[in-house]
Amino acid sequence: MLIVMEVTANTTECKAVLEQLTSLQLEAYPSITDDRSIIVVKENDISTEITEQIRSLSGVHSILSISRSYHLAAREYQSADTIVRVGQVDIGGGQPIVIAGPCAVEGEDELLQTAQAVAKAGGHILRAGAYKPRTSPYSFRGLGEEGLKLLALAREMTGMPFVTEVLDTRDVDKVASYADALQIGARNMQNAALLEEAGQAGKPIILKRGLAATIEEWLLAAEYILATGNHQVILCERGVRTWEPLTRNTLDLAAVALVKRTCHLPILVDPSHGTGKWYLVQPLALAGIVAGADGIMIEVHHDPDYALCDGPQSLTPENFACLVEHLQFLPKNQTQFAVSTTSASVPSVI
Amino acid sequence: MLIVMEVTANTTECKAVLEQLTSLQLEAYPSITDDRSIIVVKENDISTEITEQIRSLSGVHSILSISRSYHLAAREYQSADTIVRVGQVDIGGGQPIVIAGPCAVEGEDELLQTAQAVAKAGGHILRAGAYKPRTSPYSFRGLGEEGLKLLALAREMTGMPFVTEVLDTRDVDKVASYADALQIGARNMQNAALLEEAGQAGKPIILKRGLAATIEEWLLAAEYILATGNHQVILCERGVRTWEPLTRNTLDLAAVALVKRTCHLPILVDPSHGTGKWYLVQPLALAGIVAGADGIMIEVHHDPDYALCDGPQSLTPENFACLVEHLQFLPKNQTQFAVSTTSASVPSVI
Amino acid sequence: MLIVMEVTANTTECKAVLEQLTSLQLEAYPSITDDRSIIVVKENDISTEITEQIRSLSGVHSILSISRSYHLAAREYQSADTIVRVGQVDIGGGQPIVIAGPCAVEGEDELLQTAQAVAKAGGHILRAGAYKPRTSPYSFRGLGEEGLKLLALAREMTGMPFVTEVLDTRDVDKVASYADALQIGARNMQNAALLEEAGQAGKPIILKRGLAATIEEWLLAAEYILATGNHQVILCERGVRTWEPLTRNTLDLAAVALVKRTCHLPILVDPSHGTGKWYLVQPLALAGIVAGADGIMIEVHHDPDYALCDGPQSLTPENFACLVEHLQFLPKNQTQFAVSTTSASVPSVI
Amino acid sequence: MLIVMEVTANTTECKAVLEQLTSLQLEAYPSITDDRSIIVVKENDISTEITEQIRSLSGVHSILSISRSYHLAAREYQSADTIVRVGQVDIGGGQPIVIAGPCAVEGEDELLQTAQAVAKAGGHILRAGAYKPRTSPYSFRGLGEEGLKLLALAREMTGMPFVTEVLDTRDVDKVASYADALQIGARNMQNAALLEEAGQAGKPIILKRGLAATIEEWLLAAEYILATGNHQVILCERGVRTWEPLTRNTLDLAAVALVKRTCHLPILVDPSHGTGKWYLVQPLALAGIVAGADGIMIEVHHDPDYALCDGPQSLTPENFACLVEHLQFLPKNQTQFAVSTTSASVPSVI
Repeated sequence: MLIVMEVTANTTECKAVLEQLTSLQLEAYPSITDDRSIIVVKENDISTEITEQIRSLSGVHSILSISRSYHLAAREYQSADTIVRVGQVDIGGGQPIVIAGPCAVEGEDELLQTAQAVAKAGGHILRAGAYKPRTSPYSFRGLGEEGLKLLALAREMTGMPFVTEVLDTRDVDKVASYADALQIGARNMQNAALLEEAGQAGKPIILKRGLAATIEEWLLAAEYILATGNHQVILCERGVRTWEPLTRNTLDLAAVALVKRTCHLPILVDPSHGTGKWYLVQPLALAGIVAGADGIMIEVHHDPDYALCDGPQSLTPENFACLVEHLQFLPKNQTQFAVSTTSASVPSVI
Repeated sequence: MLIVMEVTANTTECKAVLEQLTSLQLEAYPSITDDRSIIVVKENDISTEITEQIRSLSGVHSILSISRSYHLAAREYQSADTIVRVGQVDIGGGQPIVIAGPCAVEGEDELLQTAQAVAKAGGHILRAGAYKPRTSPYSFRGLGEEGLKLLALAREMTGMPFVTEVLDTRDVDKVASYADALQIGARNMQNAALLEEAGQAGKPIILKRGLAATIEEWLLAAEYILATGNHQVILCERGVRTWEPLTRNTLDLAAVALVKRTCHLPILVDPSHGTGKWYLVQPLALAGIVAGADGIMIEVHHDPDYALCDGPQSLTPENFACLVEHLQFLPKNQTQFAVSTTSASVPSVI
Repeated sequence: MLIVMEVTANTTECKAVLEQLTSLQLEAYPSITDDRSIIVVKENDISTEITEQIRSLSGVHSILSISRSYHLAAREYQSADTIVRVGQVDIGGGQPIVIAGPCAVEGEDELLQTAQAVAKAGGHILRAGAYKPRTSPYSFRGLGEEGLKLLALAREMTGMPFVTEVLDTRDVDKVASYADALQIGARNMQNAALLEEAGQAGKPIILKRGLAATIEEWLLAAEYILATGNHQVILCERGVRTWEPLTRNTLDLAAVALVKRTCHLPILVDPSHGTGKWYLVQPLALAGIVAGADGIMIEVHHDPDYALCDGPQSLTPENFACLVEHLQFLPKNQTQFAVSTTSASVPSVI
Repeated sequence: MLIVMEVTANTTECKAVLEQLTSLQLEAYPSITDDRSIIVVKENDISTEITEQIRSLSGVHSILSISRSYHLAAREYQSADTIVRVGQVDIGGGQPIVIAGPCAVEGEDELLQTAQAVAKAGGHILRAGAYKPRTSPYSFRGLGEEGLKLLALAREMTGMPFVTEVLDTRDVDKVASYADALQIGARNMQNAALLEEAGQAGKPIILKRGLAATIEEWLLAAEYILATGNHQVILCERGVRTWEPLTRNTLDLAAVALVKRTCHLPILVDPSHGTGKWYLVQPLALAGIVAGADGIMIEVHHDPDYALCDGPQSLTPENFACLVEHLQFLPKNQTQFAVSTTSASVPSVI
């Protein structure tokens, strides 16, 4: 850790910082540049509280925390890719996984019809909401446990495992008793109580990126789950909020490539929420896989014009089948796209 | 409600839209402009689901929803300002209210020392976190119920009511049994389960704006609480996330003036989180009041250099006293700042 | 055009709006919904000024402008893809074009070395800055005309045409006398004087998206050039500014797919500026092509560690060769990725 | 300057960095923390190019540049407030200055009518555009030199000096020959050619903040002008772009307070563009002054309903007079709002 002093900091202030470091049993020594002092602290694994304490000392300009703030999620902690198994499906193992289904469970016929279309087209995992987070309290909020039962029925009929969102700590056990994987949505990415309760349920968890979450905040949210001992975490990029009015969100595919480099967890792309427009779903889904994603999460509805939510971004079964078919045109082996993980000056090894 | 058809939409598509509207028992009639058709729907109070259904029909370009999406929070629903009473303190009644205290309850001595300084300087309500939402799972997360007890003690000693954050639906009753008002933080602004559970506790609720929440989403979050029958909601602007690196957030004071115009609920400004720098707190607090806020929420710490969180944005008791003193320099009567609420062409009545 | 009146608007206000429309010789008639009046204006091609006039009339809530604001750039104006020829290279004709070179012309040896590496690896067009826009006045700002001469020399030696940025209306003729295509950078996207002067030079123009420009503003900037009679415009997505600190910008690949759908001009992706990190360039370049881009623009430096600018985002010649090689793994025929351009309910025709 | 090496950097890489520093004649020495090496460079005034070179060396994690990037604009360069005189009006001298007028010069009658209303209400400086930057090439773009002549006429009739925007380097001399001060608009904030040409004209310059410009980029744009030897620069905060749809921009008043602290130049607030809604102009103008601004810039139109641009954000003469009247209710002496400029632990001296 480095403590940069103000240009105007005087010797007394520098001394006071050094003394407090000593009182905290941290080994430190001063360095001096042309216009200010720097204090180098040998120890790097320092708690957020102590860092904040020091940051506020008189004369301190800023602190350079050199360690990553997340540990269990970092490539440094585990260099090999984590593979998370949902039902019999491996996510992160090299083959692009397709998770698809309607935004919400609307009823038995609607769900089964879409689920069968997803399975037939080659989807691997079913998705649909039984509990729906909504911006307005007056919107349709899902069928609840009835929806979970219908999802279990769809699993039985199609053989696909399913993932569904959980919104409330009090529902975690119930949802986990039905679902093959839990989803934590963008609105709840920093709901620590939910992250920890879900982590303890022992099921795989798909963690969506928050609307305005930095990559680091997102990985720290994953860290909340990992710290419960549950290592089956799958990240999902679903777009961030910008000022662009023509798309619902701005899908950040650089985040996908960056996460693959700094974190060992598998990552999905959700171009349905990421773009909000059905006709952008296919190009962005394919682009997401090429950028390094381990799979895609797609909203499909047997009749988008009548969907209870997210119709404009849902694919018809036909368009979905078309998308899955196009996945095969992509290079078979993801590792073809590997780039060097060392310095800029070292050529990429293919 | 207006349905705008695509330029390329044909008669069959227009007819299909009209038929579906009829089947939904909505009265509608077509209008034609030079380059496309418009369908005017007489009924305006249409659910989000039906709107979304129609939006996805073939040939539909867009829908102009004319009603506000929130009802109970709107000035149209209640033209008079809502006044929320916390303990014996009225928020929204004309006098700027000062809520202050440390970011977190750190211990008995620390809390009492700061609380007494707040009371002495003229603060009205105490704030401090017993349950702290943190970006990293490794940060200090508060003293829990022990913190609530210390807050009750501080209330007894200073006579000030207190507000504290609740993070988990399962903690609502416990927190409500101690606190005079509950706070829902920015990270939980769209945690519907928490909004509703807190609403049902019957205590006043301070609802902070989410990091990337539009004003409308924020008022819809308030609507979740209002819809439980609890009308004691106080909004709090605390800055939104932008790319500016020199401030922690970007405090949106236009939102304050706008909310005062379209919504009857009282609103606070939190310049501590809004700027992240102690030396920006005073000018932005005063600016917030002038922009129309009913009060301010300020982090104060008896020794910011040693605060367990948010030290850099906390005022010392001396700087806090200075801020409160400056409030009196502002015009006494908020209504002096009233502007016309009718058209641009009508002069403001003072 | 639709004029939506306020809920509170009275008959006098509605009449006044209708009268002004009549005085402007616009045909209009009122429609009434349950809670307010709507005025439908038959004419759609209405100037911005008149729209703004009407928007300010007493009682007007909002205006729904139904026409696109850009004309010459729209697919409705020209349904076929525009192909722009730079030297002997066609951009927009189906084959992904590779434009590459150093950020700046630094000197003869440096430029020729990199240019030859680009040509050898299969690049089609050379890029390098002779005039550099810089955030600080104290940064290296390019070699000026000397740089243009070196670029002409590199063209002679490699056979590749070159594109270079122009910053000042007074330099347009000089730059155009050397270059095969002009670049308008992100900082100048809304510099109308430069857009028009460059348009009149008669050379192809690469128009980068502004840092915070909406897609519509970007296409309107293109419209400035098109309106001079110069139809050789190539768009270039280079990332937009968000709060994410780990990447220099956020590359918006959905914008690429959206532009291909609504506009006939060719579009490039610049993952070097879009990400700011050399190791993200390859995955995002490939993803950009899959999302629909007609080519990529890449910073290459023979020795990034010593580059005068943009070193961290520059590829070595080896890494660049690797990237070009990977382009061939992508599906040969872009049209394989075509999706339906009609309604959601119509299956995609492949 | 501090160079932080990667955790994985080896001795050879550290040595190579040290050697390059030596070859650049920079004095440097290594420090070692528990998990990585740090290289401290004594010299701090290092060019951007060299910093970028070093940043790209193998094994370098990041660089902590400790100096501010701007010099002439910094409080460290000049601790006293700069006062800029426009005509006979001092900006930055303690009294809030009011600059007002229509968005554009529309015609003689319109301009004179508004100018007289501005003067009568107590405005100090007239503003109006003769050259208008517009998003669409089809919008009204100003009367050009004819507009400048009308502005000179209005000056003669009212005694107020005027400021007007310049868009093109080739127009600078012409505009400067009429105007008392030049305005550089948000779209041109990083148009270096224009900044320098305008700087050399020797007139005061109002420099608006770019739509997505950080405070540092803005001050660096001011540095471009200051570096020409022209020190009469006035900053103007006019809102930045965020996702909030209900306001045209998000007015960043914390930037005002921050700039006052770190920079000696005067600063204005433009709540007309900052909010886009006439009824938000007054509260935000007053809030801006309280936050520390030296003046306000307001759009006034004698009949906003018929304005050729920016009608919805323009005040009527009556509303403008009301705003000016309210300025007197604010505390007379800006320095009342002074806060300590030293550390958090030092109480504010009033």
